[in-house]
Amino acid sequence: MSNQSAANQLSIECHPIGEMITPFTQKFGIPRQSSGLTAIPGYIKMFPPYDDINGFRGIDDFSHLWIMFQFNQSIGTTHTYSPLVRPPRLGGNEKIGVFASRSSFRPNNIGLSKVKYSHIERVDGETRLHILGVDCLSGTPILDIKPYVTYADNEPDAQSGFADNAPVPTLIVIFAEDVLTQLDTCNLPETHTKSSLLALIEQVIAFDPRPAYHQKPDYQAQNPNKTYHIRLFYLDIEFIIENNKQAHIINIQA
Amino acid sequence: MSNQSAANQLSIECHPIGEMITPFTQKFGIPRQSSGLTAIPGYIKMFPPYDDINGFRGIDDFSHLWIMFQFNQSIGTTHTYSPLVRPPRLGGNEKIGVFASRSSFRPNNIGLSKVKYSHIERVDGETRLHILGVDCLSGTPILDIKPYVTYADNEPDAQSGFADNAPVPTLIVIFAEDVLTQLDTCNLPETHTKSSLLALIEQVIAFDPRPAYHQKPDYQAQNPNKTYHIRLFYLDIEFIIENNKQAHIINIQA
Repeated sequence: MSNQSAANQLSIECHPIGEMITPFTQKFGIPRQSSGLTAIPGYIKMFPPYDDINGFRGIDDFSHLWIMFQFNQSIGTTHTYSPLVRPPRLGGNEKIGVFASRSSFRPNNIGLSKVKYSHIERVDGETRLHILGVDCLSGTPILDIKPYVTYADNEPDAQSGFADNAPVPTLIVIFAEDVLTQLDTCNLPETHTKSSLLALIEQVIAFDPRPAYHQKPDYQAQNPNKTYHIRLFYLDIEFIIENNKQAHIINIQA
Repeated sequence: MSNQSAANQLSIECHPIGEMITPFTQKFGIPRQSSGLTAIPGYIKMFPPYDDINGFRGIDDFSHLWIMFQFNQSIGTTHTYSPLVRPPRLGGNEKIGVFASRSSFRPNNIGLSKVKYSHIERVDGETRLHILGVDCLSGTPILDIKPYVTYADNEPDAQSGFADNAPVPTLIVIFAEDVLTQLDTCNLPETHTKSSLLALIEQVIAFDPRPAYHQKPDYQAQNPNKTYHIRLFYLDIEFIIENNKQAHIINIQA
């Protein structure tokens, strides 16, 4: 048995094994627990020595993976422990315990996401693990990659309180005519065609990235025609929202 | 986007938020990925400031939790990265990539277990999170506790290769008469009655903790009547195995 005070004072040094490369270059707009969003592609660029392809032998047998990562806000900062958080799912008003939430403001700032495994490749001297359904900022440090083991990880009868149902898309996304024209002259991210980029933008915005209080009539009355911006790759996407129902994409530029 | 070399060199300091208290005071015999083994109780003793009960507000809404922990062998040691491991599930002969396995020999040595939530209590000035289905050595440092969120974590259609099926108990466990008598005079662990202790021993040994090569006829011919020992709490449990079918518990002593 370990000695409490000794174990308590112990600090554990971790090293990133790679970094996540995703369309999300800015925090606003990242879908939460987005494992269903398979239009959102990304890859993990492995750092040496973890880029050894042997480390992935047998991974094609698995359909899903767990990614453990370091939440962005912790890098290089120290912060005081707050036992209570306000989950966005509860409208940002109700406080619950950090250990009853998946909040990013937590001890050790370790995040856990289930993703769909796509493929692994060696390209330009790099090992890239391609995945689908990512919900991390690009550049997020990766701490571990584990296979999803159905018998151990699947718990169909689990109860999960306020988070029992998946978030659903609530906005219809409409692209203005001249935005579609704009995209023809704009340099697209190398991983995307025009149509896959439109699908990505649609999937991200349909989940309504606004804070809960922006969805209230009072706020909207005071801020008519408010414009929002989401950054995907190097593109700035500008939109307005009508009646909490339609998102109109009015501008896309590099 | 982050700079590769900077991110690569970055080290992240983690602190244990608590330690796992389990019946397992020795590595041999710990069931692997034992989330089904609800006879195996344990608790997390939280360290200050994470023992603040507010950190658990709302946790009763969840039936299952994820426990992130530090695998024991990493504490205070540095080791060279080995991209290949030999999972016990494959008989210990076949090598697969560490990222295609849940092996404990992995970068950052972070483990992930799904457990059943039981209850939380304040006792003797400690906050204890009681759980069922633990598969860690007692004293294991805990890095995080997260609720199991069904829509995000459950993946009923996942494929998991060689680990698609749960390990099943393969041994019938028989207690010698005088062992049952021994237990009447022996100090039992405070958390157990005689019958719950017998159930625990049975559940642990039924999964056959022996290395795969001990199960082969050759090994058994050369090592007839070999005795095995498992340590649970402060008790030494001695047993022999007949025909790969029956485990006879022949001695239990403190």
